[in-house]
Amino acid sequence: MSFDPATLVYDDRGLIPCIAQEAETGEVLMMAWMSAESVARTLETGRVTYWSRSRQAFWVKGESSGHLQELVDLRLDCDRDCLLALVRQAGPACHTNRRSCFYRAVREGAEVEIMAPMAD
Amino acid sequence: MSFDPATLVYDDRGLIPCIAQEAETGEVLMMAWMSAESVARTLETGRVTYWSRSRQAFWVKGESSGHLQELVDLRLDCDRDCLLALVRQAGPACHTNRRSCFYRAVREGAEVEIMAPMAD
Repeated sequence: MSFDPATLVYDDRGLIPCIAQEAETGEVLMMAWMSAESVARTLETGRVTYWSRSRQAFWVKGESSGHLQELVDLRLDCDRDCLLALVRQAGPACHTNRRSCFYRAVREGAEVEIMAPMAD
Repeated sequence: MSFDPATLVYDDRGLIPCIAQEAETGEVLMMAWMSAESVARTLETGRVTYWSRSRQAFWVKGESSGHLQELVDLRLDCDRDCLLALVRQAGPACHTNRRSCFYRAVREGAEVEIMAPMAD
């Protein structure tokens, strides 16, 4: 069955969440949003391309920082309303310079940092 | 720093997305939504508890099916608007009886199934 981004289920802003996971290690790096056109561009270019809600613009991950996400495999969930992108991430995925955006955990009722920024 | 679910960033429905990842294997199982009270209940009970948008009710994952998600670690992202729950998943996470909801991939322009339902 040929894939058409229009068959995905978007929210009232026309967006779908996409989880980025490092293909080799399985580490979950970040979650961001895609429009139908972001999905199409991601598949065409092999560079993961989100839709920036704050800038209202396409966001080729790493285009300015160099921390590109190369697409390895794009998956969709049973309800077609969430995507999982397996990627090869160059450097940190997080704007705080950490490998993953999920660098805080809740342990014994307290919020703790579990990951340090990467060395430059 | 003590953790308060009210410090998370919720959308206009009062919900935050939560990614469930199998703690041992790193497999991403599903994504669903939590309210502040879902987050609190998840931490209190150790059973991952979403908010069902279709039923408008708390949804203790696996409560009816037996396919519970035991919380191992709860993480939050840099923007505090997405959660990552590391879990021990009993049986399939997906209502289609597959281990993960992300059982379809887009490969060479076609949509393909990459995971079979689990045996009962």
